Amino acid sequence: MSILVVGSVAYDGIETPFGSIDRVLGGSATYISLTSSYFIDQINLVGVVGNDFADADINRFKDRKVDLAGLQINNEGKTFFWKGKYHYDLNNRDTLDTQLNVFEHFDPVIPASYNKPKIVCLGNIAPALQSKVLDQVESSDLVILDTMNFWIEGAKDDLKETLRRVDVLIINDSEARELSGLPNLVKAADAIRAMGPKILIIKKGEHGALLFTNSSIFSAPAYPIVDIFDPTGAGDTFLGGFAGWLGRSGDLSDDNFRRAVIYGSVMASFCVEKFGPERLFDLTNAEIADRYTEFRALSAIPLQTDNSF
Amino acid sequence: MSILVVGSVAYDGIETPFGSIDRVLGGSATYISLTSSYFIDQINLVGVVGNDFADADINRFKDRKVDLAGLQINNEGKTFFWKGKYHYDLNNRDTLDTQLNVFEHFDPVIPASYNKPKIVCLGNIAPALQSKVLDQVESSDLVILDTMNFWIEGAKDDLKETLRRVDVLIINDSEARELSGLPNLVKAADAIRAMGPKILIIKKGEHGALLFTNSSIFSAPAYPIVDIFDPTGAGDTFLGGFAGWLGRSGDLSDDNFRRAVIYGSVMASFCVEKFGPERLFDLTNAEIADRYTEFRALSAIPLQTDNSF
Repeated sequence: MSILVVGSVAYDGIETPFGSIDRVLGGSATYISLTSSYFIDQINLVGVVGNDFADADINRFKDRKVDLAGLQINNEGKTFFWKGKYHYDLNNRDTLDTQLNVFEHFDPVIPASYNKPKIVCLGNIAPALQSKVLDQVESSDLVILDTMNFWIEGAKDDLKETLRRVDVLIINDSEARELSGLPNLVKAADAIRAMGPKILIIKKGEHGALLFTNSSIFSAPAYPIVDIFDPTGAGDTFLGGFAGWLGRSGDLSDDNFRRAVIYGSVMASFCVEKFGPERLFDLTNAEIADRYTEFRALSAIPLQTDNSF
Repeated sequence: MSILVVGSVAYDGIETPFGSIDRVLGGSATYISLTSSYFIDQINLVGVVGNDFADADINRFKDRKVDLAGLQINNEGKTFFWKGKYHYDLNNRDTLDTQLNVFEHFDPVIPASYNKPKIVCLGNIAPALQSKVLDQVESSDLVILDTMNFWIEGAKDDLKETLRRVDVLIINDSEARELSGLPNLVKAADAIRAMGPKILIIKKGEHGALLFTNSSIFSAPAYPIVDIFDPTGAGDTFLGGFAGWLGRSGDLSDDNFRRAVIYGSVMASFCVEKFGPERLFDLTNAEIADRYTEFRALSAIPLQTDNSF
């Protein structure tokens, strides 16, 4: 029972209205694997770092029992570095610096010990690389893919090719509109699900998320956060919580996909409370359970009463 | 047991990507009163129309048993006319024409038979006029107010004065940010509730609505509509359903405010299915009840399971 996580491992520089940090552990595979480590024990990470990657950061993964047999250490260069700045409302950010470094020629290799995962999490990397990962996976119960507007615009054919092999796609609302060419999200969801993924999650930031399956639509609320400190990694954290719960429960029913969306939302709501992935190191089971309960209370619609229609 | 509705009665010209109509019954008091007439029998309308107001339109109110003793007919001019055009995504509209006509000097007079309503619905008119209505109301259980950015920007002092006398404020998210000066909606809600209204509803269009009370926050989903035909009046229709349910049930508990938000959302989701207020003339009780049930299913979060945290 394991989750295979493929994506970037990086250092991030982050500026928000509430402070800044020059260099903190980041990357999609980092957020996904740290998050899903709260749900099951066997998290197998595939990624690449450079000669500047600190032992202390290796240990942060090990402390969370993330398996690093698939983490390549490329001594020819430095670790992927990204720097961004968030604006006042935290909904928009500018990229100030991107140094791909060793990530530029990342060639994911899946160790033999990883090739029968229960769940495959394809973090946001080039669609052709995501396909290459799937070529190396012998069997799995579920393939989950994240992508972004950069690939929708620049590698649409590759993306469509990869989507045919995917069970769950997680994107945001503007990406869903761009990928489908349709402004109405319900119509966009139909069009995208016809491309391959039977399960589609459309993230809407401060407005929650929508889950589309064969049999229903689920509207998940957003947690009403007073102090968002740093949104970095929230989307990857969502994916980690979503996949983690499915791995832990082993249940791929519609109702359980709803639970998975809420666990993803729960974990993302914690992530934004501190800079970088800090909050993902000190969570307790009770905190996770309590926040799930808060989500239920937040969106509970009472039954109709006797004087209803 | 009655609802007092004060606002505009108008003719609208509407252009959407799906068609256009030169002249259709419109105005906030129209949508509110027609909608709430599905919930209770005694709906008392206060407004003004001009010498061009058709008998056929008077009869449309009468058919829905809306009391028109408070509808002034000013033979010196024409009925308020508004013309607007919706864009491709239906989230934005341009006003093409506004002829205030007899509405320019509207002076709401509350008939003696109307001055002890259970609920007062103050549709979107000048805050000073909304106060003037309240001056004439002898007693009521609940005062609900709608407003817009035009008054927040142009009559903020009047609005703040009026808000002190209001129990429920219904505005959209950009208006909440503008009124409070705060980008975070949870903080904005705290600031606005400190201005008077203990109950605040923030409408978020295609993202649903938030209800803030003393004891909780409720996140209501939006109905996933495939074919929005015409958004005109959806906000007023929400108010009509919200107030209508509270009037019908006579229950001002937090749980029942949640039901009221859903009934408001239900009615608004019907409203946008046809041009103008057309859909508000042929609804059945079964349609309303069924859609309420659909809203519950849409946002139902399953309980945690044994292998949860």
